[in-house]
Amino acid sequence: MSVDTLALAQTLIARRSLTPVDDGCQAILIDRLKRIGFSIESMRHGEVDNLWARRGSTRPIVCFAGHTDVVPTGPLAQWVSDPFIPTIRNGRLYGRGAADMKTSIAACVTAIERFIQAHPQHQGSIALLITSDEEGAAVEGTVKVVETLKARGDSIDYCIVGEPTCSEKLGDTIKNGRRGSLSGNLTIRGIQGHIAYPHLAKNPIHLAAPAIAELAQTEWDRGDEYFPPTTWHISNIHGGTGVTNVIPGEVNLLFNFRFSTASTVESLKQRLHDILDRHGLDYDLQWSLSGKPYLTPRGKLADALGMAIKTVTAIEPELSTTGGTSDGRFIADICSQVVEFGPCNATIHKLNEYVEVADIERLSEIYRLTIEQLLLN
Amino acid sequence: MSVDTLALAQTLIARRSLTPVDDGCQAILIDRLKRIGFSIESMRHGEVDNLWARRGSTRPIVCFAGHTDVVPTGPLAQWVSDPFIPTIRNGRLYGRGAADMKTSIAACVTAIERFIQAHPQHQGSIALLITSDEEGAAVEGTVKVVETLKARGDSIDYCIVGEPTCSEKLGDTIKNGRRGSLSGNLTIRGIQGHIAYPHLAKNPIHLAAPAIAELAQTEWDRGDEYFPPTTWHISNIHGGTGVTNVIPGEVNLLFNFRFSTASTVESLKQRLHDILDRHGLDYDLQWSLSGKPYLTPRGKLADALGMAIKTVTAIEPELSTTGGTSDGRFIADICSQVVEFGPCNATIHKLNEYVEVADIERLSEIYRLTIEQLLLN
Repeated sequence: MSVDTLALAQTLIARRSLTPVDDGCQAILIDRLKRIGFSIESMRHGEVDNLWARRGSTRPIVCFAGHTDVVPTGPLAQWVSDPFIPTIRNGRLYGRGAADMKTSIAACVTAIERFIQAHPQHQGSIALLITSDEEGAAVEGTVKVVETLKARGDSIDYCIVGEPTCSEKLGDTIKNGRRGSLSGNLTIRGIQGHIAYPHLAKNPIHLAAPAIAELAQTEWDRGDEYFPPTTWHISNIHGGTGVTNVIPGEVNLLFNFRFSTASTVESLKQRLHDILDRHGLDYDLQWSLSGKPYLTPRGKLADALGMAIKTVTAIEPELSTTGGTSDGRFIADICSQVVEFGPCNATIHKLNEYVEVADIERLSEIYRLTIEQLLLN
Repeated sequence: MSVDTLALAQTLIARRSLTPVDDGCQAILIDRLKRIGFSIESMRHGEVDNLWARRGSTRPIVCFAGHTDVVPTGPLAQWVSDPFIPTIRNGRLYGRGAADMKTSIAACVTAIERFIQAHPQHQGSIALLITSDEEGAAVEGTVKVVETLKARGDSIDYCIVGEPTCSEKLGDTIKNGRRGSLSGNLTIRGIQGHIAYPHLAKNPIHLAAPAIAELAQTEWDRGDEYFPPTTWHISNIHGGTGVTNVIPGEVNLLFNFRFSTASTVESLKQRLHDILDRHGLDYDLQWSLSGKPYLTPRGKLADALGMAIKTVTAIEPELSTTGGTSDGRFIADICSQVVEFGPCNATIHKLNEYVEVADIERLSEIYRLTIEQLLLN
């Protein structure tokens, strides 16, 4: 059996599924899942292939979620082997998507196959939610599948997202939530004028500076048991006409909150507006919420996964909410218990991405034990 | 005689002398000046035509300075008449350079002609310093002529620059100095990183903001009898990778001091560095001094010009040091008394530039009376 997960991972890595292209990955999964009794729903939106597959019709529903798309390779000359020719060297499987996250997908498929082989009459349901649009715009992917499920009244009881969560060793980290991401596009207006006649102008950069200074040192919250404090950062600032003797009429800033469940979207917006207003700024501000925070406190799913990890790896995993956003934020909308667990993430999005070959089968086994605990106990 | 200055102004406006091209303007002047006994030195530097013309070999030297080049026209369709076809409408002479500053050049030539006709054996010397590179880079123009004169030990006693200085009516403003212009290109460094892991990054925009806020409200000096206080303004600020999830590694600012003689270049540099250093910033700063301030306090030249203005216009002119830089800054290097006086500047650099026809001959008369007072008294 141990060759099996590796072989499936290799097959998937060989597909050139650059986001948002699936390049046949889901067809491979569908073929495997149909053989073990899954009903299949392919949901294509735009260029994006999405898959909702389910075996069983009763609760609870244990779902694995993931994506078949991968990020670009970067300079091919700097890859030791072709990123789309899965290659084993020194006990590592190299290839784009090896860690993020084709190995996880292979591992959950083989885990499900083995569980069903042992328990063909299991209670509850097993599902897969797969997209080819997680690394890109993420607007035609998981969020659309969740909308469809929600519209027809479906929900998920337990969801494991196979994102690469471990930092040093397989088993060291479960993500049990993610901070939210709230962005703003802020234009602060002044009055353009010649720099030799500044009394006729209002310099928007000068007007903005004290407000930026205050925003940068504001304590938005102190986080909580699971989350670090909310952070606010400017990613881009641009003002100026290009010439050196003109005070510009406006300055534009893009900023982003990464926020914990200790703050709300509305409270952050209000407090930021309050600071801008207190500084008497004339401004235009467009908000965009790219992800609400989600949190799965310790409970049945985190416990089952933690126990499975400890059984296989002898490691006590840490629960963490750090890092960027993931599709977990969308799934949390119809699932009260969402966690993320997958291989080590040291090489994701980088050159020469790899996964330890020894971890591949252990990951499958962790997933299998988790299903067992959730559906047999 | 009254047709004469107008005719010469029209002849000059008809030349397409877009900076730094002279397009034959100086040849026209040379022809007129040779006939009244001027010795001529053409000093071409690169694409730029410069002219130094002098009549007489004794002191004092009264010099008129100006430029034959003009700024671009802007959209031709928005000119009522062709900018290079001098056209009189409603008592105004329209054309590019009508105010800035071909009329002034014509006026000083006819003023000199009349003065010499009346006083062929005048004491002292009369000179003209004309360039075709005032509106452009200004590196091959007046500054080069001044270098040449300085190298051979020549200096000027009184210089009138014919820049358009009046705001409402001919005669209302003499510029007796200009602020200096000191620019900086400042790069503040942080550490680039993912916005979801801000503890691994240092946001240079956040680091810069308190320093900018302090610089913006710093009182650099209070000016003096002749100058308004020194001002400091940012003209451009740029930071950011373009993507919204990355804290940039640096932010770049272009700033500019317009400074009075109440501050020195070195004191401004030192105080700005002190503020950046006190904020603990890691930065790179390139300075460029585009013009030292110059000042001609009340004295023989300003008094003579003021009396001439009052005689012709019945207006008591104001002495002012406002506005951008002019070639006066270079001439001040070899001339302790430099003032600027010319027609109204409301339309300079704009569409449908014009000068009042009635002002043309009055300007010539003001210049003539000024020469008389400086050389006959």
